[in-house]
Amino acid sequence: MTQYNQYIELTQKAADFNNAAAVLGWDQEVYMPPKGFAFRGRQLATLSAQAHEMMTSEAYGALLKALLESSSLKEEAIRNVQISWEDYEKNKRIPVSFVSQLTTQTTQCFGAWMEARQKNDYSLFAPQLDKMIALKRQQADYYGYQDHPYDALLDDYEKGATVSQLDVVFQQVQKQLSPLVASIAAKPIIDDHCFHQHYDRQKQFDFSMQVLRRMGYDFDAGRQDFSEHPFTTSFSPQDVRITTRVDENDFSSLLWSSIHEGGHALYEQGLPTEQYGLPLGMPASLSIHESQSRLWENGIGRSMDFWSYFYPQLQALFPDSLQEVSLEQFYNSMNRVSPSLIRTEADELTYHFHVMIRYEIEKALLSNELQAKDLSEVWNAYYQRYLGVTPTDDKSGVLQDVHWSHGSFGYFPTYSLGSFYAAQFLATAKETIPTITTDMAKGDFTQLLNWLRMNIHQHGRRYRSEALCQKVTGKPLDFNVFLNYAQEKYAAIYGLKQ
Amino acid sequence: MTQYNQYIELTQKAADFNNAAAVLGWDQEVYMPPKGFAFRGRQLATLSAQAHEMMTSEAYGALLKALLESSSLKEEAIRNVQISWEDYEKNKRIPVSFVSQLTTQTTQCFGAWMEARQKNDYSLFAPQLDKMIALKRQQADYYGYQDHPYDALLDDYEKGATVSQLDVVFQQVQKQLSPLVASIAAKPIIDDHCFHQHYDRQKQFDFSMQVLRRMGYDFDAGRQDFSEHPFTTSFSPQDVRITTRVDENDFSSLLWSSIHEGGHALYEQGLPTEQYGLPLGMPASLSIHESQSRLWENGIGRSMDFWSYFYPQLQALFPDSLQEVSLEQFYNSMNRVSPSLIRTEADELTYHFHVMIRYEIEKALLSNELQAKDLSEVWNAYYQRYLGVTPTDDKSGVLQDVHWSHGSFGYFPTYSLGSFYAAQFLATAKETIPTITTDMAKGDFTQLLNWLRMNIHQHGRRYRSEALCQKVTGKPLDFNVFLNYAQEKYAAIYGLKQ
Repeated sequence: MTQYNQYIELTQKAADFNNAAAVLGWDQEVYMPPKGFAFRGRQLATLSAQAHEMMTSEAYGALLKALLESSSLKEEAIRNVQISWEDYEKNKRIPVSFVSQLTTQTTQCFGAWMEARQKNDYSLFAPQLDKMIALKRQQADYYGYQDHPYDALLDDYEKGATVSQLDVVFQQVQKQLSPLVASIAAKPIIDDHCFHQHYDRQKQFDFSMQVLRRMGYDFDAGRQDFSEHPFTTSFSPQDVRITTRVDENDFSSLLWSSIHEGGHALYEQGLPTEQYGLPLGMPASLSIHESQSRLWENGIGRSMDFWSYFYPQLQALFPDSLQEVSLEQFYNSMNRVSPSLIRTEADELTYHFHVMIRYEIEKALLSNELQAKDLSEVWNAYYQRYLGVTPTDDKSGVLQDVHWSHGSFGYFPTYSLGSFYAAQFLATAKETIPTITTDMAKGDFTQLLNWLRMNIHQHGRRYRSEALCQKVTGKPLDFNVFLNYAQEKYAAIYGLKQ
Repeated sequence: MTQYNQYIELTQKAADFNNAAAVLGWDQEVYMPPKGFAFRGRQLATLSAQAHEMMTSEAYGALLKALLESSSLKEEAIRNVQISWEDYEKNKRIPVSFVSQLTTQTTQCFGAWMEARQKNDYSLFAPQLDKMIALKRQQADYYGYQDHPYDALLDDYEKGATVSQLDVVFQQVQKQLSPLVASIAAKPIIDDHCFHQHYDRQKQFDFSMQVLRRMGYDFDAGRQDFSEHPFTTSFSPQDVRITTRVDENDFSSLLWSSIHEGGHALYEQGLPTEQYGLPLGMPASLSIHESQSRLWENGIGRSMDFWSYFYPQLQALFPDSLQEVSLEQFYNSMNRVSPSLIRTEADELTYHFHVMIRYEIEKALLSNELQAKDLSEVWNAYYQRYLGVTPTDDKSGVLQDVHWSHGSFGYFPTYSLGSFYAAQFLATAKETIPTITTDMAKGDFTQLLNWLRMNIHQHGRRYRSEALCQKVTGKPLDFNVFLNYAQEKYAAIYGLKQ
């Protein structure tokens, strides 16, 4: 066996363990009976530890090193090995004892978060969060960084991202998005009562299945189920599953969750099967992943083109609720902008203030400028300042997201980056193939999906986010593309002067 | 860490891999989209190989040997180590290269069986089966045996079972069960048309859920789904799942599948959680497992006591089909005895002739007295001789079971042994606690389940089948207990002289 084939065998075997863990994770959220938790935790831990052990073994490192020095590899092989080496080299900086410390603290911290949420009392979470932050600072030290400890952690979620880059992005959000939101706030609020009627659970689900099929989701290589929090998971490009949630008295819940997760799933289904488990068979980054979900959810799923095709079908499905509601009313309702307390329920504009607040807080926590004990107050002050609303309690404030209890510091920014990449990708696709828009109004997304497959999906991790953006759109990430899209769309909806 | 704790850690870790594989297996049968097969196969192989590697490593063997020589272990620990050593020592006799040869041939052989079944042509299967049998003979040689090569394979499914023991059992089946079946055949056939009406799928399922709950199946530690072939699978005693199948035009399909699998599941849920993954936390044997499913399916689920409680409920659920059908008619229909071609659809008496035929054939194949190419003819001759029916084609004959294509030679006899153990256990339980019978007629199975938990479930693999039977019933396996049960029951149903 050649060394490269040895590399493939080991890497794909580790992927098997990770994918098996993903199946167990899916089952846990979707079908596992409650007592199943007792042993599921250790089964998941065993699988993850096995994959981690393989990917950080001395033998694997030696193999990668030998391959890096080899001159006989083809371009794709070289790229796989380079990325695997980067991962290896980064993982090796964390001592094994620290990994288990972090795992233990995550369990503690998540437990405290659950209890604090239940009792609606942030002070029960603060001491555990404090310990978690200390560990994350330690982790940043192990990784090493040039300017800011947060840089080291950001890199875990978005390779190469730094505070100095993100500061620029979020300054644009603050300076340029605020005036747009302010001008919308000055207009009469959109009446979205049409969403708050009774919508049968099964009919909503069936409609979402139709939409997903139209989008190009291959249900022979996937499925949709219900879970408490919608998510996408992949066991291979041939088995990519999504979940959604339902509220029979709020139409805004199920469908856009399905479209969002469907966007993620189309990306995973579009990864090259022959690169199974290897870097070129994996998604590029969290922000690029999020760009795919946001592109479909907002760029397509909240567009007039999309609904000019689907709305008559929806009306036929829910005649009692919708026969008196015009397409325009329905379209305006789904695009209502209104500052609110909960990130996951925010509209596509104010959403980025939610992310910005978390970004500022994570930065300050990591650099020791902010202490965990003061977080609830700081959180509320930020919400007042940027969104003009103040949480009435911790549950609708600082305790709303699970991320920090899991030790995920640096994850949030990828949500905004994803949206901005999405706008830029979609603008480029429409420029390149103008008929995409007219096709959409016929419920035909084939050309768009092909464009995404060719330009984004098929590359796997070959390019980092920034490089991919440059390659696909001809320029680096440009917030103004998102801003222009938003200004144009919302000017029409709210009758704003442009 | 003590050596015993090291042993626990390694053994439970291997169990984690096996249990993860079981989750992937469950998913594959129940919810996996069709294209998922592409990578699921390799993921399952990776998990099983990992567990196998751990359990056959030199290090594990050395640890077991050291523990066997240690004098500080308690009784339970000694038993665990002894059984693990037996397993280890047996597994080590098979060279690694042979394991992969067998895996490859299983894939080939299963593929050939599928094709042969589809084309209804045994000759397409024969050459691959021939190769499989050669490998199984080889495997028997690796294991070693005293009298008959089949003994070595039987031991894989039923520790300690031998041809000389089983010959006695099946001679009893032939000599003593045949006259009973013959005297039934001389009576008018039972009219079971009440089963062949329309029974709504969901209502059938819901009714089976009620029955399972009454039996004591803990749905917080399990669930029931649909699959093509009903099965039970366990990921820990806290997560034990069953599947069933439905035929809307045949009531005999769903419910007794559910009860049968429910019996298996109650056993798995009753294994001691503190022995997770260790021999004392595993089922005793296949025959004891089958004794639990058969006890519930036939001993309980086809008894008058059971139905005197449940039948009014069933009538209320299906008034159109059942209001004119008396309890006696319904009871007789579910106990109709009639020789037929398909093992899995056979009644509880003629079933054992199906098993006996397979037993005789396996024995002859292993000892080279019979060749794969002649199997179809021999099969049909056996069916004519023992059941008085002749398969009209291979699909309803020699191609009906999947077992041989998987290389499972020695599995079938455990089905009959299970039934005979079941009769003996139930007789003992009723003798010990006479109120079990009156409780049943009230839909209360608590005492019976407690008796099974105390006498069988809690022991795990502590005792081999024969020893367990001796301990629980005071005597070795005795076919006459089953025969007496059958004679009494069917004399009443068919009006036979006893």
